[in-house]
Amino acid sequence: MNLTALYKGHFIDTPTPDEFRVRKDAIAIVEAGKLLSLERSVPARFSSLPVKDLGEGVVIPSFIDLHVHAPQHMQMGAGLDLGLLDWLENYTYPGESRFADEDYAQALYPLFAAELLRQGSLRSVVYGTVHLESTLILAQALEKAGLMAFVGKVNMDRNAPDDLKETPEASFKGSDAFCRRLADIDRVRPIVTPRFAPNCTETLMKDLGQLAQRLALPVQSHLAETLSEVQWVSQLFPERRSYTDVYNDFGLLGPASLMAHAIFLSDAEIDLIMQRDATVVHCPSANINLSSGIMPLGRYLDKGVNLGLGSDVGAGHTLGMYRSVIQAVQASKLLRVLRPEEDHRAVTLSEAFYLATMGNGKFFTRQGWGPCGAFEPGMSFDALSIDMRFPEAVEMSPLNQLERFLYTGDDRHIKTWILAGKVL
Amino acid sequence: MNLTALYKGHFIDTPTPDEFRVRKDAIAIVEAGKLLSLERSVPARFSSLPVKDLGEGVVIPSFIDLHVHAPQHMQMGAGLDLGLLDWLENYTYPGESRFADEDYAQALYPLFAAELLRQGSLRSVVYGTVHLESTLILAQALEKAGLMAFVGKVNMDRNAPDDLKETPEASFKGSDAFCRRLADIDRVRPIVTPRFAPNCTETLMKDLGQLAQRLALPVQSHLAETLSEVQWVSQLFPERRSYTDVYNDFGLLGPASLMAHAIFLSDAEIDLIMQRDATVVHCPSANINLSSGIMPLGRYLDKGVNLGLGSDVGAGHTLGMYRSVIQAVQASKLLRVLRPEEDHRAVTLSEAFYLATMGNGKFFTRQGWGPCGAFEPGMSFDALSIDMRFPEAVEMSPLNQLERFLYTGDDRHIKTWILAGKVL
Repeated sequence: MNLTALYKGHFIDTPTPDEFRVRKDAIAIVEAGKLLSLERSVPARFSSLPVKDLGEGVVIPSFIDLHVHAPQHMQMGAGLDLGLLDWLENYTYPGESRFADEDYAQALYPLFAAELLRQGSLRSVVYGTVHLESTLILAQALEKAGLMAFVGKVNMDRNAPDDLKETPEASFKGSDAFCRRLADIDRVRPIVTPRFAPNCTETLMKDLGQLAQRLALPVQSHLAETLSEVQWVSQLFPERRSYTDVYNDFGLLGPASLMAHAIFLSDAEIDLIMQRDATVVHCPSANINLSSGIMPLGRYLDKGVNLGLGSDVGAGHTLGMYRSVIQAVQASKLLRVLRPEEDHRAVTLSEAFYLATMGNGKFFTRQGWGPCGAFEPGMSFDALSIDMRFPEAVEMSPLNQLERFLYTGDDRHIKTWILAGKVL
Repeated sequence: MNLTALYKGHFIDTPTPDEFRVRKDAIAIVEAGKLLSLERSVPARFSSLPVKDLGEGVVIPSFIDLHVHAPQHMQMGAGLDLGLLDWLENYTYPGESRFADEDYAQALYPLFAAELLRQGSLRSVVYGTVHLESTLILAQALEKAGLMAFVGKVNMDRNAPDDLKETPEASFKGSDAFCRRLADIDRVRPIVTPRFAPNCTETLMKDLGQLAQRLALPVQSHLAETLSEVQWVSQLFPERRSYTDVYNDFGLLGPASLMAHAIFLSDAEIDLIMQRDATVVHCPSANINLSSGIMPLGRYLDKGVNLGLGSDVGAGHTLGMYRSVIQAVQASKLLRVLRPEEDHRAVTLSEAFYLATMGNGKFFTRQGWGPCGAFEPGMSFDALSIDMRFPEAVEMSPLNQLERFLYTGDDRHIKTWILAGKVL
C-alpha cells in the first residue's frame, strides 16, 4: 500500500493527436510508478492516503526527446549561418574531438543531463561521440540524474576528421563493448548508432546491423537531411536503390529503428519505412537552422508513418521540447504557405504536443519499457507540473496555460518533475 | 565631471549589418548619457574615476522593439492555430475590450512594462487600445519603468466589434486628446495609430493624417500582412491604387511612418514606400504563427528599404527581441529553401541583430531623440550586459557568447540594463 501515491491537479494530455484532453480537478492514483486511474475524487479505499497537490497550474506528461547529441550541448547556437556539411566540419567535429578526454566528459556530461532534466525531457534517445569511455560517462550521468534514456556510441569509419575516424574493426568492437558494458545500468540502455551512411563503410554497417540483431538492440541514424547529402549517398553507394535502402540492406531498418530528419524521401522510401515499421524523427529546429528543408509532417501523419520529435541539439538550439513543439507547428505552417501548390497542411498544436509525448513514448513502449506518454491507466506516471498563471485579473483555462507555456514558457515554469511515479 | 561614467567589458555591436564588431576589454566613456568613446584603457584624464566592470560576458546595445501590442501581452500563445482575421475576432478584440476598465489597465500594464524591461527592450513603439485613459496608463507605466517609448491610442471606426468601435469624431478627438495629454511625459511620446485600413473610414484617416502633420507626430499602422486582408482593402477602397496608396493618400505615409509586416506588396508599392522614406517593420514571429507569409527581408535589405524589427506580441509569442532576431533568420532561410525559384537569400545573424538595434534605432533618431543603436561616439549609451559563459572547460569567444545568447538565452542571462547612461 505504501507504493500508492495520489496527485491532485488539472491534467492535460493527448492520447490521440486530434485534441488536448483536459481533466480539471482530478486525482491521479499511482501504484508502483504506474497510473492506476484518474478520478474525480479520492476513492474511499484510498481515503487514508495523503494527496499531493500539484497546484493550480497544469499537469502534463513529461517530454521525451527522440534525437539529441549530448556533446553538442555546449555548441548550441554556434555557426548556424552554415549548411549541414560545413557546420559539421567547422563546429561539430572539432567539438566532439574533445571528448577523447574523459575528464572533459566528466566535466560536461553531468551538465547536459541536468539541463535535460530541468527542461522536462525525462526520457531521451541520445548520441554520444565515437569515444567508448566518454560515452559510458554520458550514460552514467543520465542515470545519476534519474533519467531514462537510450545512449549510442557513435560509429564513423570514413569521411570524418582523422581524430574521430575509427577503423571498421575498432568501431564495431567499441560498439560491441559499449553495449555489453551498459548492461550494468538499469534505466539507460544502449542503441546502435551508425552516425549516417556517408560516415560508415559497408563492412561497418553490416557488422552493426548484425550486432543490433544479435543483442536485440534498437538503432538510430540520420536519413535524408539535406539534398547534398542525398546526392553524396547515391555516389557512395551506387549499387543501392536509395538512401533508405542503404540502411535496410544492412539490417539497420526495422521496428526498433529511429531515422532522424527524413526530409527528402521518395514515395518508395516512405513505403519501405512503413513496411519495415521504422520510426521517423522530425527535428524542425535543426532543419530550419541549417536551411536543410522541411519534412512534410502533415502528410506523414495522415499517411500513418511512425513519427517522433527531436530537439536535435546542437543544430537544434534548445533542449526544451516545448520549443520543438512550436517549431514543428511553425515549420508546417510555412511549408503550407510557401508551397501552396503542394497542398500541405498545417500541423496543430495538439498534434505536435502528441509527438513530443505519446508519439515519442511509443518508441520506449516498443523496446519493452511499458507504455508511457499520456495519463492512461497502466502507463508509467511521467509528469510535469507547470505554472503559467497570469495575475488574477486574467482568467486562464488550463488549456490556455498550456498554450502559453508551450509558446512562451521556459524551465522556470516547470515546478515538479515526476518519472515513473518518482518525484525527481 | 560627475556626469562621466566608465564601463569595462567586451563590447559587440553592428554599426553596419555586414558583421559583428567585437571590441574586447574595452572601456566605454560615457558622458551625460552618451558614449564619448570606446578606449583600450582608461585615458589619463579619467584615471581618478571608478570603472564599473560589466563582467566577462558581453555588452551589447539594448534592444528596440518597433512593433508591439501591450494589451495582447496577456494572450501570448493563445489561438495561434488560427489565421489573422479569425484570431483578431476570437482572441484579440475580446482581450482588448477589457481595457475599457481602467483598473484592469492599472493592474496589467505595469506588468507589461516590467517584462519589456526584463527582456532588454529599453525602447519600443507600442500599441494600446482604443481607450484613451487606459492608454495613458500604459504610457505612465512605461515611463515609470524607466523606458523610452512611443505609445499610440488605437483608432477604429469600422469593422470592429461594437464595444471597440468608435465614431470617426470620437476616435479623432480621443487621439487628439491623447497626444496633447502625453506632452507631460518626457520619455514616452505619442504616435498616431490607425489600426489598419480596414478598421478606419476615409474620414478618420484623413483627420489622423492631418493630426500627425499638425503636431509633427509619427504614425504607425499595419500593411499587407495577409492576402485576404489585401483583397479586403481593395474592396473597401476601390478608388485607391493599392493598399500602400491608401495610407499615402491620407498623409499617413512618410519619413515618420512605421508600417508593420509589408509582406504582399507590388514593386510599385515598395517604390512608393522608399520614395516617401517610410519604414517597414518585419515581424517574423507573428507572420509565421498566423501563417500569414514571409516578407522577403533579404531583398528589401539589398534594395535599401528602411527596415526595422518587431516582436508583434501577441501574434508574436515573445517580447524578447533576441528571439525575434532568430525568427527573422529562420524565416529568411525557409523562404530561400522553400521557394528556390524566387532566388531569395538567407539573412545573416548580424543583419537580424542590426535590425533589432541599429536599424530600429534609426526611427528614434529620426524623431529627434539623438542617435542610438550601437557603440559609436555620440550615441546614447544604451546597453545590456549578458553572461552566457559555459563552464571553464569550454572556451567561448565573446561572439560565441552572443550567438549562444541569441539562440538559447533568456532574460536570466541579462545582468545589467543601461538606458541613456543610467543603470535601470
